[in-house]
Amino acid sequence: FQRRRPARDPAALGPQRGAGLALGPRQPRGGAPRPRSAPEPRRPPAAMSLESLRYRRGALRVLDQRLLPQRSCYEHIGGVRQGWEAIRAMKVRGAPAIAIVGCLSLAVELHGGAGMGQGKAGLETFIRDSLSYLVTARPTAVNMARAAEELGAFASREAQREEATAESLRESVIQWAEAMLEKDLRDNRRIGEHGARHLLQASPRDTVTVLTHCNTGSLATAGYGTALGVIRSLHALGRLEHVYCTETRPYNQGARLTAYELVYEHIPATLIADSMVSVAMKEKGVSAVVVGADRVVANGDTANKVGTYQLAIAAKHHGIPFYVAAPSTSCDPSLAEGADIVIEERPSQELTDVNGVRIAAPGIGVWNPAFDVTPHELITGGIITELGVFRPEEL
Amino acid sequence: FQRRRPARDPAALGPQRGAGLALGPRQPRGGAPRPRSAPEPRRPPAAMSLESLRYRRGALRVLDQRLLPQRSCYEHIGGVRQGWEAIRAMKVRGAPAIAIVGCLSLAVELHGGAGMGQGKAGLETFIRDSLSYLVTARPTAVNMARAAEELGAFASREAQREEATAESLRESVIQWAEAMLEKDLRDNRRIGEHGARHLLQASPRDTVTVLTHCNTGSLATAGYGTALGVIRSLHALGRLEHVYCTETRPYNQGARLTAYELVYEHIPATLIADSMVSVAMKEKGVSAVVVGADRVVANGDTANKVGTYQLAIAAKHHGIPFYVAAPSTSCDPSLAEGADIVIEERPSQELTDVNGVRIAAPGIGVWNPAFDVTPHELITGGIITELGVFRPEEL
Repeated sequence: FQRRRPARDPAALGPQRGAGLALGPRQPRGGAPRPRSAPEPRRPPAAMSLESLRYRRGALRVLDQRLLPQRSCYEHIGGVRQGWEAIRAMKVRGAPAIAIVGCLSLAVELHGGAGMGQGKAGLETFIRDSLSYLVTARPTAVNMARAAEELGAFASREAQREEATAESLRESVIQWAEAMLEKDLRDNRRIGEHGARHLLQASPRDTVTVLTHCNTGSLATAGYGTALGVIRSLHALGRLEHVYCTETRPYNQGARLTAYELVYEHIPATLIADSMVSVAMKEKGVSAVVVGADRVVANGDTANKVGTYQLAIAAKHHGIPFYVAAPSTSCDPSLAEGADIVIEERPSQELTDVNGVRIAAPGIGVWNPAFDVTPHELITGGIITELGVFRPEEL
Repeated sequence: FQRRRPARDPAALGPQRGAGLALGPRQPRGGAPRPRSAPEPRRPPAAMSLESLRYRRGALRVLDQRLLPQRSCYEHIGGVRQGWEAIRAMKVRGAPAIAIVGCLSLAVELHGGAGMGQGKAGLETFIRDSLSYLVTARPTAVNMARAAEELGAFASREAQREEATAESLRESVIQWAEAMLEKDLRDNRRIGEHGARHLLQASPRDTVTVLTHCNTGSLATAGYGTALGVIRSLHALGRLEHVYCTETRPYNQGARLTAYELVYEHIPATLIADSMVSVAMKEKGVSAVVVGADRVVANGDTANKVGTYQLAIAAKHHGIPFYVAAPSTSCDPSLAEGADIVIEERPSQELTDVNGVRIAAPGIGVWNPAFDVTPHELITGGIITELGVFRPEEL
């Protein structure tokens, strides 16, 4: 269904308009008769999609997601060092967005002249060193490591071309990073379409209710999103009944970011605590679970935000299909199985403090793994990529 | 194992003592050589147990648990109205403690003379009305409802005795409430002993690692605790390897209260997010899950803090025994099965705000059930009561 949005056209507010001060957002007034001459409330033109980053050649800004939902601040990224810091500090997060910001931070630094003046061999070394450094910001998501490898290899090939100069190498690398940005957006739209079609075919009902975890939307990617892209596509088709999003402790990406995107897009949604997933599955008619991925390895085992494994167990218990939505760049065939994935452990303060205020008892020990691994046998719905939906063993 | 506690004996701090201002709690100084003459750090005498309430005839104070761990404040409860408010506002929580505070708030009000002057029939009505009112503060835990019923019936029987006077009725009701306080503490110690013995018999190892949820300790009861009582008993026996406690969103009873009790008692423990339970079970050698109960119905289905159901599903998936620890007063044979239990839904602010600061995106819908129901077939370890450990179907 489609929620009717509050009228923005003042004429549609009828005879009482101006009768009082509006102290909050205007609500549609149920029941008040509409004067015959007033037009029907119009759905405003589609709002601009949220942007995790803004880029034009030579200039990169990233939205500091740590400040959402209270403040929307874009921070200037002048080069690799600032890119690394933005990733490490989780100003930008989400596996695809991390890789894009990393590569674009290098593009910006190159555009500013860094690495030039030592010839093309010197520039190639500079590029490779910068990429290796960017990979160290966060270890679990494969996208940055993979992008570093591909861009590094690309730069080497370019440098080896006889006619290549430092200038042409620089231009090629900048274009490569820019193409990555465009490809991510295109791939996400395809993930959304493939996923929506698969979910609807698998469901006996006309509309579906989806449960998701963490943030996999415009804020985690170049735009549109992966798991949230599937939800966006279902909503655009008018086939989305409802979304349940977990708050996603300890960093609250669900409560802060996914909820923000869902409200922004007027998608009917309810926030729940991570501990409420199972009771929601039991009582709220959840049709499917769709989550993102930080890394999918050869056998289909998937590393994603901590709690994903538990969601998959709960989904299996309730007979609800469990999907992973991720671009093929999140796949890492070099690792055989989930046990090979390095899991990042984050500082305990993320769990014990909220907005700088301690909530946990002082002195308590803390374990704070940022991710967990969902074994492939629990991914019962499939892995949704830009190339289609696959069973884990088909990868 | 036993963690070494920081030395409290100033002499044990060695030659640098007084070298600087201590701005926080003293830490043991690893590495600094200890002068030969200084004594070994001594374990101080067993600290006083935490108290959720302090009572002497005519005076009741409850610890405002909403302020923990930052502040430890006892609030005066002058009568039933304040008792109701303390329960409703969750200054006191935990099914056993709620019932005890409710009944003692009536005892205090009676001691002050309330309900007197209309004869024993008038007093009986006053007592019954007060009890009915107290039950409305929070609907899910059975203990207050059950205590109200029993105390109401007791008061009626007393009033019907020919020789009874308003004064003797008052005295009997006050004594009944005081006996409840003593019985709860005694029962909890028995729960701890029965539970510890059962867990150890079921485990192939000498020491066990226990995972628990919410707060079921001294703060949730008159003292010692139910699930946390089992953990306390295991620790006293030297058979506890480690405890994992969930933070227990949205109200953080685990992070604030259970962690506080565990640190206070020097029990080796680690705090995790609710979403980390499954990965902890997979990787941390959890021997058993022990939780409390707000209500156990005739078929063994159990209402407890939201998230308990999910823990039970995860425990089953990992083949880990799942126990419920509760006094027999938490059993409610008048309800046939879990679906009959009324589940309290709490205000959305508990989920969206922490310490008065909004963490969730404005405008998002929220579902905040305070409890969920764990079906009896998932209670694979048993139900630990003061009378012994039972399979759900043996109730």
